[in-house]
Amino acid sequence: MYFRRVKSYDFASLTCSNCRASSPPRLTDKLRLYHVDMNPYGHRVLLILEAKKAKYEVYRLDPLHLPEWFRVKNPRLKIPVLEIPTDQGDKFLFESVVICDYLDEKYPRNPLHSRDPYVKAQDRLLIERFNELIKGSLECFDTNFAFGSEQIVQTLDIFEKELAERGTNYFGGNKPGMLDYMIWPWVERLYLLRCINERKFDEKRSKFPNFADWGDQMQLDEVVKKHANSPSEYFEYYQNARTHSMGYYL
Amino acid sequence: MYFRRVKSYDFASLTCSNCRASSPPRLTDKLRLYHVDMNPYGHRVLLILEAKKAKYEVYRLDPLHLPEWFRVKNPRLKIPVLEIPTDQGDKFLFESVVICDYLDEKYPRNPLHSRDPYVKAQDRLLIERFNELIKGSLECFDTNFAFGSEQIVQTLDIFEKELAERGTNYFGGNKPGMLDYMIWPWVERLYLLRCINERKFDEKRSKFPNFADWGDQMQLDEVVKKHANSPSEYFEYYQNARTHSMGYYL
Repeated sequence: MYFRRVKSYDFASLTCSNCRASSPPRLTDKLRLYHVDMNPYGHRVLLILEAKKAKYEVYRLDPLHLPEWFRVKNPRLKIPVLEIPTDQGDKFLFESVVICDYLDEKYPRNPLHSRDPYVKAQDRLLIERFNELIKGSLECFDTNFAFGSEQIVQTLDIFEKELAERGTNYFGGNKPGMLDYMIWPWVERLYLLRCINERKFDEKRSKFPNFADWGDQMQLDEVVKKHANSPSEYFEYYQNARTHSMGYYL
Repeated sequence: MYFRRVKSYDFASLTCSNCRASSPPRLTDKLRLYHVDMNPYGHRVLLILEAKKAKYEVYRLDPLHLPEWFRVKNPRLKIPVLEIPTDQGDKFLFESVVICDYLDEKYPRNPLHSRDPYVKAQDRLLIERFNELIKGSLECFDTNFAFGSEQIVQTLDIFEKELAERGTNYFGGNKPGMLDYMIWPWVERLYLLRCINERKFDEKRSKFPNFADWGDQMQLDEVVKKHANSPSEYFEYYQNARTHSMGYYL
């Protein structure tokens, strides 16, 4: 994703100590994730790094004070970015889905994509289809958390039916796979709607029983727990993001 | 892609013999590609089917007379579609990039993606980046073939530098790989600009020497030749598409 929601801020005019900070040292054996706290696309990559038990460090970026070296290395200002040590120096990868597929191929332990090419292709289409819910959430969180975005409900309906058809606890089978982790960051955030209207939330929730059970189980997953935030933390974050017209990243 | 360029036509009001035609028989061993002639996304899939030496048949669709059964099976009216025979009946795949990656995984012969996960990830990013040229071509072909679309030139610049850096004849090395075939359909169409102004075309071409050589070599590739059209055929097609405000698909 781009930092496109930062509309009210002129990066070019910034002069601050952070912006002049020098770049982090060259990597040796670990990976490095450039991440903005609470960013759901970076959250995807954190889940996969964790699920694959990769060695990594996180370099936290403040989107309002991006260091100059980061802007030079990454002129399109994309986040998240994965830095990879290689014999030819450190290399960079962009786009959360591409980064996560890379990690799944690079680290054969605990394969997350199905070995069946057809199922893998279907999962990729569903990850793309989930973008509708992402758009719907953006709209919902941006309009005083209005309930009932059609985009959210329609997407949940597709995923509800898909789970029922697969007849498994997770999209990936008996444990979370790539599709589960790719959609999780936005589902974790949807629970913030319970902070606003519990009755309404539970009413909606009951329309998607398989998906609701899936969400309950995902929350118990060790990988998910490692990078989880509570509904009230998200609520506060998105509320402030709106109030202060800070850039935020859904 | 969707049939979104067909704006002037009301599918719902159609009654024609084609629309009532029954669906083709269930597959046995072959694949079936649902394709609209001259559609570049379907062209991608044809190239990969050919490169992988898969057994397939092509079901040609007339976008202005889509059969009812196709609309039922594929309510989002996506093309191309790959139909795959399985023990649980025929299954369908959408999205040219997903279909092509599926084919590369399903048919191990002549692997098209790099075995190096980092190079494969880079190639996926470049395929996505190429969408800028697709948008630029659409604009160019839609505005009386005006030269010099910035989007086209900027994208060609990226691919020119990439080829120079790789130092190989093809993006895939010493033979065309997935990235080569994924971008080829639109490059093949760009040659139609030579029909309009040869001097101007050659002037532009000379700014991208590596890419120009790559294009010359791609045209000699057996897979490419099998599904090639000439610049004048494309010119005529896109000219008519504009003149008659038919739906066309870039």
